[in-house]
Parts: sequence; C-alpha cells; structure tokens
Amino acid sequence: MRYHRDDVLAHAHQLVATYGLGALTMRRLGAELGVQPSAIYHHFANKQTLLAAVAEEILRRGQRPRTADDADWTGRVHEVCAELRDAMLACTDGADVVATVWAFGMGVQGPPLELEAILRAAGLDDDLALVGSRTLLHYIFGHAFEEQTAIQAISAGAVERELDSLPDFWTGLEVVVDGLRSRVEAAVRA
Amino acid sequence: MRYHRDDVLAHAHQLVATYGLGALTMRRLGAELGVQPSAIYHHFANKQTLLAAVAEEILRRGQRPRTADDADWTGRVHEVCAELRDAMLACTDGADVVATVWAFGMGVQGPPLELEAILRAAGLDDDLALVGSRTLLHYIFGHAFEEQTAIQAISAGAVERELDSLPDFWTGLEVVVDGLRSRVEAAVRA
Repeated sequence: MRYHRDDVLAHAHQLVATYGLGALTMRRLGAELGVQPSAIYHHFANKQTLLAAVAEEILRRGQRPRTADDADWTGRVHEVCAELRDAMLACTDGADVVATVWAFGMGVQGPPLELEAILRAAGLDDDLALVGSRTLLHYIFGHAFEEQTAIQAISAGAVERELDSLPDFWTGLEVVVDGLRSRVEAAVRA
Repeated sequence: MRYHRDDVLAHAHQLVATYGLGALTMRRLGAELGVQPSAIYHHFANKQTLLAAVAEEILRRGQRPRTADDADWTGRVHEVCAELRDAMLACTDGADVVATVWAFGMGVQGPPLELEAILRAAGLDDDLALVGSRTLLHYIFGHAFEEQTAIQAISAGAVERELDSLPDFWTGLEVVVDGLRSRVEAAVRA
C-alpha cells in the first residue's frame, strides 16, 4: 500500500490529536499505516519536517473567514488571535506543537505575518509592527499553553486544579492591545 | 545509602539541567542515586510533585536582590520579569518546566504574586492586578519558550534558524507594561 503525503499527514495529525505529541514518531506512524519508516521519510525528511506539517495542518483546520472591517485594526487583531488560539486548543498538545514549530523557524508564519500586516496598515512602522506581532504571539502561546496543559492534566486526573481558575484570555489580550494602541495613536498623530 | 530530600532534589535538578526534561523519571533518578524508586517516592509522592520541586529550585537559584525604588512600579516589574526569564533560561528546558508546573497549579507562585503586589501598590484594583500579573507571565513564558527552544534546537543541530532572528524581550515587555500603564494612570486619576 502506498500513501500520498496528505494521507500520511492526516494520520500524523490524528495521532497527535488522539494521543498527544509524545505519540508522534516515524516508527509508530509507519507501523500504523503498515509501511516501512522509509516510506514516511519519502514524504518528510525528518521528524522536525513532519512536526512542522502537523502544525500547519492544525492552523489550516482552524481557519475562519475574516469579517472585521478593514479600518478596525483591533477587531482584525482579535480575529487572528482568536483563530490561532482556538486552532491550538482544538488539538491535543496543539499549543506545544505550534509554539515549538514556530521556535524552530520551520513554519507557522501565517498568523504572525497577518498580525504584522494589520499593525502596519494601522500606522506602525515595520519594526514596531514586528515587535507588536511577536508580543501578541508570545502572549497567545503562553496563555494557550497554560490553558491546554491545565485542561489535559485535570482530565487525566494528574492534578487537582479547578478549571475555573484559568485566567481570562480576552482581558489579558486587551492589555497587550492597549500597549499597541498608544503606539498606533502616536504614529497616526506624527 | 539514604538521601535527604534536598539531595534527591539537587540530583533531579542536575538531571534536567544536563539532559533536559525528558531525562527526569523516578526510575532514572533512583538508578543514578543507587536506591530503589521507593526511596524517591518517600520524598516525592509522584512525578508531578518532583517536577514542581525542580521548578521551585530553578526559581530559587535565579533569585536576586531587589534594587528598584518602591515608587518605581515599572522598574520593580522589570526586575521580577528579568529574574524569572533568566532563571528559566539558565536551566535546560527551564521554560517548559516552570510553565508546566504553573499550569498544573502546583507551584511557581512567587513571581506572579510579587507582580500582583507591585501592580496593586501602583494603584490597580485586585482584579486588574491579577490580570496584569498573568498577562506579564504569559508573555514571559511565551518568549522564553521560543528563545530556549530555538537555542537548544540550533545547538543540537536540529534546525538551521539563525540566533539573531530571536525577538527582543524588552521591547515586547514594554508594550505589555504600556498597556498596564494606561490602567495605572486611570486608577491614580480616579
């Protein structure tokens, strides 16, 4: 049996979604598909490349149409941040997978590039738009990692933390957006 | 040979610092100390409890004296954030360990509680001080996880990312602090 790249990727995503990041190995993937590991390496040169493809698949499955008005930069930022967060939370260990691939510099460029473009369109120069995009990204990663780790550990019975003690995502995001707003207003005045 | 809790913890910390989080198991820890796993469980009821102690040890080793003036809330925030970040970066997988234990609700209370107290002293009410503390924490965790994951993967030869492409910590922190500043100024005016 031969598999196309999309079939191998779909199974890799399903492995992570069902059993978590620790279950994703070339050996296990090959065994479940009934092929030699070499058949996996034919499509993905190494584990990092496979992980990067899974991260992109997590983002792709979370994509939603944009509805905010072009002039409403905070509304546009909210849409991108919510989409990214929800996409990661929808897959077991999704925050870990996406943040790791981003740190590897091997993918997950979509959301940060879109945030940069929104901040540039709002009036920030390239340097500030880059910093703003990365700051939003780090906040989202940090929050999603806590939320997902807590939920998974509680549901596995590993810890006794109460679910309602999770911090609110939107209030924190508003703090970061306010820090950007003061820079956008200064840029528009200049 | 019998070991005190501090000896077991020191060796657990050394295991993580040398080989990373994946190397920390009760079995390996017992083998390296030449004792049965039950001798480890005598001091640490389970893996999560041991991990929590390692996280606290990472923070303890990074502690520095406070020097900022009491009235300088942004200077005080910077001190706590820098200490937390440096402590995590000083230990292999430190960001992962500390963020995980925090998500488990099993420790790492020091920095967030100190940030909350600083923000309350600056004039924020309890709810805002809590949100502000958590937002800073998530930004620091997100940034440190990227920085540490990138550095470790590059040094292991696993990825080819350039080290100088890492985003600046302080500029992003200033964005979050500015978002808090607008709230502090509103609180002081009120």
